[in-house]
Amino acid sequence: MTQASQAPVSRYPVPSLDAMPEDIRVRILKVQEKSGFIPNVFLMLAYRPDEFRAFMAYHDALMDKESGVTKAEREMIVVATSAANQCQYSVIAHGAILRIRAKNPLIADQIASNYHKADIAPRQRVMLDFAMKVPQQAQEVDEADRAALREHGFSEDNIWDIAAIASFFGMSKRLANFTNLRANEEFYTLGRN
Amino acid sequence: MTQASQAPVSRYPVPSLDAMPEDIRVRILKVQEKSGFIPNVFLMLAYRPDEFRAFMAYHDALMDKESGVTKAEREMIVVATSAANQCQYSVIAHGAILRIRAKNPLIADQIASNYHKADIAPRQRVMLDFAMKVPQQAQEVDEADRAALREHGFSEDNIWDIAAIASFFGMSKRLANFTNLRANEEFYTLGRN
Amino acid sequence: MTQASQAPVSRYPVPSLDAMPEDIRVRILKVQEKSGFIPNVFLMLAYRPDEFRAFMAYHDALMDKESGVTKAEREMIVVATSAANQCQYSVIAHGAILRIRAKNPLIADQIASNYHKADIAPRQRVMLDFAMKVPQQAQEVDEADRAALREHGFSEDNIWDIAAIASFFGMSKRLANFTNLRANEEFYTLGRN
Amino acid sequence: MTQASQAPVSRYPVPSLDAMPEDIRVRILKVQEKSGFIPNVFLMLAYRPDEFRAFMAYHDALMDKESGVTKAEREMIVVATSAANQCQYSVIAHGAILRIRAKNPLIADQIASNYHKADIAPRQRVMLDFAMKVPQQAQEVDEADRAALREHGFSEDNIWDIAAIASFFGMSKRLANFTNLRANEEFYTLGRN
Amino acid sequence: MTQASQAPVSRYPVPSLDAMPEDIRVRILKVQEKSGFIPNVFLMLAYRPDEFRAFMAYHDALMDKESGVTKAEREMIVVATSAANQCQYSVIAHGAILRIRAKNPLIADQIASNYHKADIAPRQRVMLDFAMKVPQQAQEVDEADRAALREHGFSEDNIWDIAAIASFFGMSKRLANFTNLRANEEFYTLGRN
Amino acid sequence: MTQASQAPVSRYPVPSLDAMPEDIRVRILKVQEKSGFIPNVFLMLAYRPDEFRAFMAYHDALMDKESGVTKAEREMIVVATSAANQCQYSVIAHGAILRIRAKNPLIADQIASNYHKADIAPRQRVMLDFAMKVPQQAQEVDEADRAALREHGFSEDNIWDIAAIASFFGMSKRLANFTNLRANEEFYTLGRN
Repeated sequence: MTQASQAPVSRYPVPSLDAMPEDIRVRILKVQEKSGFIPNVFLMLAYRPDEFRAFMAYHDALMDKESGVTKAEREMIVVATSAANQCQYSVIAHGAILRIRAKNPLIADQIASNYHKADIAPRQRVMLDFAMKVPQQAQEVDEADRAALREHGFSEDNIWDIAAIASFFGMSKRLANFTNLRANEEFYTLGRN
Repeated sequence: MTQASQAPVSRYPVPSLDAMPEDIRVRILKVQEKSGFIPNVFLMLAYRPDEFRAFMAYHDALMDKESGVTKAEREMIVVATSAANQCQYSVIAHGAILRIRAKNPLIADQIASNYHKADIAPRQRVMLDFAMKVPQQAQEVDEADRAALREHGFSEDNIWDIAAIASFFGMSKRLANFTNLRANEEFYTLGRN
Repeated sequence: MTQASQAPVSRYPVPSLDAMPEDIRVRILKVQEKSGFIPNVFLMLAYRPDEFRAFMAYHDALMDKESGVTKAEREMIVVATSAANQCQYSVIAHGAILRIRAKNPLIADQIASNYHKADIAPRQRVMLDFAMKVPQQAQEVDEADRAALREHGFSEDNIWDIAAIASFFGMSKRLANFTNLRANEEFYTLGRN
Repeated sequence: MTQASQAPVSRYPVPSLDAMPEDIRVRILKVQEKSGFIPNVFLMLAYRPDEFRAFMAYHDALMDKESGVTKAEREMIVVATSAANQCQYSVIAHGAILRIRAKNPLIADQIASNYHKADIAPRQRVMLDFAMKVPQQAQEVDEADRAALREHGFSEDNIWDIAAIASFFGMSKRLANFTNLRANEEFYTLGRN
Repeated sequence: MTQASQAPVSRYPVPSLDAMPEDIRVRILKVQEKSGFIPNVFLMLAYRPDEFRAFMAYHDALMDKESGVTKAEREMIVVATSAANQCQYSVIAHGAILRIRAKNPLIADQIASNYHKADIAPRQRVMLDFAMKVPQQAQEVDEADRAALREHGFSEDNIWDIAAIASFFGMSKRLANFTNLRANEEFYTLGRN
Repeated sequence: MTQASQAPVSRYPVPSLDAMPEDIRVRILKVQEKSGFIPNVFLMLAYRPDEFRAFMAYHDALMDKESGVTKAEREMIVVATSAANQCQYSVIAHGAILRIRAKNPLIADQIASNYHKADIAPRQRVMLDFAMKVPQQAQEVDEADRAALREHGFSEDNIWDIAAIASFFGMSKRLANFTNLRANEEFYTLGRN
């Protein structure tokens, strides 16, 4: 087997921290300080500074704001849709974040393998049904889907949040896949106890 | 039939120009001045200023830069992948832009209906084969796909461009679909003669 | 790019008008007189006179008769099912006929890109749902499908019409695809204003 | 279980022989004389005389002519594509005809259940691979498919025959399915010894 | 065409009866005595005695026991799911057994070609809908599926029986396919009159 | 959220150890002694003693024997095919066994999320390509698949082993899914360091 520690971050070159634009280096150092390591998605995208900035701005607009969709629920959306797209990076990295946000060491593996059988609330199941439909059959999303969400207390704005997160991570999964982005080893065990 | 002129921009409210943040209003007025009308995607996204800004920054980073993938070719990618996802807004709006960029009144309808039979160069066919694979089977993109692209003169950076455009518009199509974004009537005829 | 004007009608030889059997030549001249040009499907099929005759007889039996399914609605069926099968010829040629029959310059592009979001009546949506099911899952068509159609005023004979049109154009699309049948340039702009 | 002998021919009314137009009655009596029974497809289509005539003309143009594709091979195409579409009538009725034409009591059940494992020649396997691609992915039929056929001795005209038969029976299967056309009991055992 | 009588049982060697372990030889001789021939699945599996024993034990546990699901109904499950998986051996061999168990010479061909249009009771249709869902979408089996079965008189234990049979024959079909297991000629005609 | 510790083993009753047949109790106590807990699949199947015995006999025949396919490789097959079928129990339980057998804490999550991007040898990738084809398209397995395996040193007997394991666990996944079999919490963390 390939030795994991020697495996590259992605198929594309990774600039050294010194060579990065100031704003990008600052953001990367901040996440390193907070997490103890630099998630590889930051290093992969640093090769394209304009795309790095747009990606992070979009990410923050969706994932850091206040919303009736909790932060744990938003990570459920990321994990469920990533598993359906076989995005190794997101399943592993956001699986870790989900375990932490939900304070539940089992939830990420359950959702990644089959969200229909995960220990989640009925409202979360309806949310994931909708989140899965957006990338797979967005052209058929209709009033019935939205009515099901409203019955479980999701507002029209929450519906936008769910759909936009599913859409944004649909994009990020494709980036991860075509660049062969590798998940940091730290993610595998984070939040497991 | 619904009267087209009364049809709403999207399912979500559209703020008045006066009520928009300054930077967003300026951008919208600029596109209106250039095109003669405001493409509905701007009005739809203005409801969410942070997402508007991130979306446009991402769009510009991919679509306005210099690249070995021409601007007409980039629009081919948008039209082909939008048709596969049944995204009405993008097929119609980017179909118009493609006709203009390629100075070819037939090309958009050909690619939207079946790019395998469109009047395009072999290099462009290989480019579209890859662009279609990214949203549909990104998990299986491999060295053989990249080799085919390199044989037709695409660099590793061009490959990123193609894949990133296919990924970004994969996201935008989902936004258009869940918001019921309506294509402006102007797009239907632009570039047809 | 290939120059469109030099592109062949199809992969198969096209007999000269002089060399065609009398009845076929007459029919072709009549359509030319009416339309101002000869739709390529006539030239392609003229290579096989017996199939030409059977095809046109079938076409006329379904498309020219009186029926509770209007002629514009019949063209909607052709465009929607052709788009699903990526039949370039039918999307473009019957898109033109639909624009003319419906006196609506937007309708064909809307239906081709996503009929769920087209400006059509509820009854037409149900009709297209059924028309799409016939080629894709005819083996599962059942009483519930027919009940939905009857609720919107379609008789059992109308149901036959819808299903037979979807079936016949399912055949014609395959003919167009394996022969590389090319749509005449005239179709692209017909009925757009 | 429903008693087979009381089961209707199809969902639609069947006119009495007396009430049929002369040419249709003549054709039906001829097939009855030859086969000993009236295949139900004739009775079902007699409800729509114009479609009956066009259908039979098309059928004869493809199935009765001389061709480098033998009559047994043409029936193989019908059985293989009908099985893929779950068309009960065609699998059973044309299965019988195939057994007779090929003088082989096993071949129809083998092809209906999995033509990859049927006792057929390599040339026939390539023919069926192509015939299956026409209804399923006609939009992707390309030069490589045709080259494979030519290598096994099929001419361009034979290729048209194969594709046209697959296309025509694609249509007839849908007719059979939406009308609930029932296969005559005689077909089940014909040609089995 | 390959001469059927010379065709091998499977891709793998078949031990002679003498070379088989005693218990396996006894079982095989017993089935030969009862049926008049040795079904090829016994000869194929004899190459792997431990798997032979486990397979037959599993088979008997599901197919020979008393159950509210009749023996004919169990064979319907085998035939319907085998047809969906294009398992030639099971469609042909279990088709024969179904004809015998149901005392109905038409039923196997009807179910193999399209169970939605077979002469079966409503309860059997619901049973087959469920049996088809287990191999195709077992991850989505839910309470609604079970409720539909209970409405038709199936107990929770019957539901296990149906699902377990669909699951077990899902396995056996794969074994038959990768070994190229050939159906004995005797099966083609058994139970046809 | 449901409290995991109160969640039932499966939808079906679990007999008490005392109420189980002697041979089954002995087997269960042995696995408990070895692992420190009773994997739920044993408790689920104990409800059906005959099926328990056949299942375990089959399992042992495939998983415990000597073979050129290593025990870690066999678990790779189970995890990859289980992930494709969204079998939560097998992904989680066999993921744990794979980590232990391969002495690699990362490998199970990598293979479950996307085996194309896992840290495995080329030979193992070819093995998994084949193992995935067996449940999904066994009817199309052909000589080219086997040639690719032989090139990587797999014998015809190894090929049987790979296909049989993929087939057997295809069955077990369906059992797990329709019974709502729940993975023991112990599996989530086993072998992670």
